Amino acid sequence: MVYFDNAATTYPKPDVVYEKIMTAMKEYGANPGRSGHKMALKISRGIFETRELLGKLFNIDNPLNIVLTFNCTEGLNLGIKGLLKPGDHVITTSMEHNSVLRPIKSMEKLGIEHTIVKCDSKGRLNVSDVERSIKSNTKLIVTTHISNLTGTIMPIADIGELAKKSGIAYMVDAAQSAGIYDIDVERMNIDLLAFPGHKALFGPQGTGGLYIRDNIELTDLFQGGTGSASHLLEQPNILPDRYESGTANGPGIVGLGAGIEYIFGKGINNIRKHEEDLTEHFIEEVGKIDGIKLYGPLNKEEQLGVVSLNIKDADSSEVSYILDEEYDIAVRPGLHCAPLAHKSIGTFEQGAVRFSFGFFNTHDEIEYAIRALKAIAKEVQGGNI
Amino acid sequence: MVYFDNAATTYPKPDVVYEKIMTAMKEYGANPGRSGHKMALKISRGIFETRELLGKLFNIDNPLNIVLTFNCTEGLNLGIKGLLKPGDHVITTSMEHNSVLRPIKSMEKLGIEHTIVKCDSKGRLNVSDVERSIKSNTKLIVTTHISNLTGTIMPIADIGELAKKSGIAYMVDAAQSAGIYDIDVERMNIDLLAFPGHKALFGPQGTGGLYIRDNIELTDLFQGGTGSASHLLEQPNILPDRYESGTANGPGIVGLGAGIEYIFGKGINNIRKHEEDLTEHFIEEVGKIDGIKLYGPLNKEEQLGVVSLNIKDADSSEVSYILDEEYDIAVRPGLHCAPLAHKSIGTFEQGAVRFSFGFFNTHDEIEYAIRALKAIAKEVQGGNI
Repeated sequence: MVYFDNAATTYPKPDVVYEKIMTAMKEYGANPGRSGHKMALKISRGIFETRELLGKLFNIDNPLNIVLTFNCTEGLNLGIKGLLKPGDHVITTSMEHNSVLRPIKSMEKLGIEHTIVKCDSKGRLNVSDVERSIKSNTKLIVTTHISNLTGTIMPIADIGELAKKSGIAYMVDAAQSAGIYDIDVERMNIDLLAFPGHKALFGPQGTGGLYIRDNIELTDLFQGGTGSASHLLEQPNILPDRYESGTANGPGIVGLGAGIEYIFGKGINNIRKHEEDLTEHFIEEVGKIDGIKLYGPLNKEEQLGVVSLNIKDADSSEVSYILDEEYDIAVRPGLHCAPLAHKSIGTFEQGAVRFSFGFFNTHDEIEYAIRALKAIAKEVQGGNI
Repeated sequence: MVYFDNAATTYPKPDVVYEKIMTAMKEYGANPGRSGHKMALKISRGIFETRELLGKLFNIDNPLNIVLTFNCTEGLNLGIKGLLKPGDHVITTSMEHNSVLRPIKSMEKLGIEHTIVKCDSKGRLNVSDVERSIKSNTKLIVTTHISNLTGTIMPIADIGELAKKSGIAYMVDAAQSAGIYDIDVERMNIDLLAFPGHKALFGPQGTGGLYIRDNIELTDLFQGGTGSASHLLEQPNILPDRYESGTANGPGIVGLGAGIEYIFGKGINNIRKHEEDLTEHFIEEVGKIDGIKLYGPLNKEEQLGVVSLNIKDADSSEVSYILDEEYDIAVRPGLHCAPLAHKSIGTFEQGAVRFSFGFFNTHDEIEYAIRALKAIAKEVQGGNI
């Protein structure tokens, strides 16, 4: 099988990730932070090491400012809902995933306003449109780093600068970029950084996180056992405990650490370069196929890892079904949980066929996909699909 | 190492659980419910099978009424916060874990009242005390099934009957009982059942769930991508999607399914019988040791799997440390995230040393612990500790 659904979750993971998870489960699968015995301390240390690796990756000084969540969506909800209060205004973009749009939309009824800045038909954001949307009650700007539909890279450093000079918190959804693209919370003025563990960081499903800058105060959305200040009925105020209630995904987090170590070993720039090469070659060759429309900026400075396309007016689900059934190529059709992004690029009705590449994809696989698309496009052109 | 910390998380898991998780990760580790390709469908089916197994275990007709969460705490927060509105009243008990007490306490500021019914010094609840606490605005009763401090079994069927006749929703925290004790949401009139995956259900950490009865409407606490109704900015209203945002812990949930199949294979009654035997023997023998005070009802009809104790006025952490360091026995000292339970049994200052047994513990391990406790008690009596 050729797996081009890495934007949903990376597959496979590096072998060392599988191994570390299994070792943690079998050899020290205790409850982290709940007891003081050797095995509990060992899994707690493993979790702390993952925090440190994340800190190193994102240039976060204090690993305790990283809250470990169970997926990126939890981090986004915590950041957005934890920060905004009735009367506040939040700015986001039309390229966002529903994990940003739906929490923001749900807060309308609490009297929290929003502006959704429209991106262009290639998914590009104009920072001055963000600037023009700032109001006196704007408390937060949330943008994705790389679009999950078009692979469009957002100018997050510029937005971070704007947010900083405007005294507004800036939150980045790094669902598609963490592990591929250099993210530096200091240099980029990121106040809240949400990321999944199971995408380009190579951790397992059931992991993710949220970096919270020191001066940012979030309401906790959940309360529960933290293994700290257990005498109190109030949630403890310390980081990260305040936002981490109940049993963590201990072995999963250890596996995430192994994934990040793997990235350091390979070099994030080498990983990105490989994905750029795959993306560039795919765009170049598929762009030549008659009847295929590619979306996004279509150059490597502005687009990474994700390429969506349609073949004339063929249904995106049908094309994806043929790719899967006849060619054993896994892609994702439909709306990709990003309805306004599809509206931006004009594919809200048709959907699109999304190819998303990962570090373990090869040029041979790209060639194979190109041949498959040529054959399918011919069928569509011939009226057979 | 002798592991007596099964109330925190069970260890080890059945081999089949490790194997199924690894197979899911390595062979079909796609994102469930996000794409239509073969591998995505396979992991989605695996998740559905786990829902079905949970339904069979708890006598839940429709597996879609089971929301899969990442731990029991998330399920408890969703049930409690999703149900209660300003002006409502909730009843709970002094034996609850902070995963129940802290969410309830946090809702005070929203104008949600609570009554915490005091249990006796053995952790037992008098149902008539619950009945007396009912007010005209009581909307929810929440109780644990088995105390994580004393192993006290709560009369959940009686409370369920009371709740039903009073028109009040009943929520059970099955953190210590799911997988050991028969739970039947119909017979016991349970409207909301929160459970962890990683305790006696033998799943991995990062799994759990909440059963929601059909007529119960909960506010969703998170919103995000659900892979359904992606064209909408509103969270879809269907179950379980409404309460399951973002990427699920796919391989973990498949592993949870393997754990439940293992329980069906062994027979839940046989599992419980084994834990009853271990508990009974431990209580009987340790009860004879001079200087040791045991907590809880101390009979198998009323207490299961968990036994807490103190040795004179020795610090519980010190005793646990000696058990770990000198005997390689893992237990948990302190307050066990259950401060009011410790107040109920009179150990809020000293804490207690908690032994919690699991299906993989043996009588030999119990004998070994008894010998260790005899030796430590002698040292304490002699003034050496």
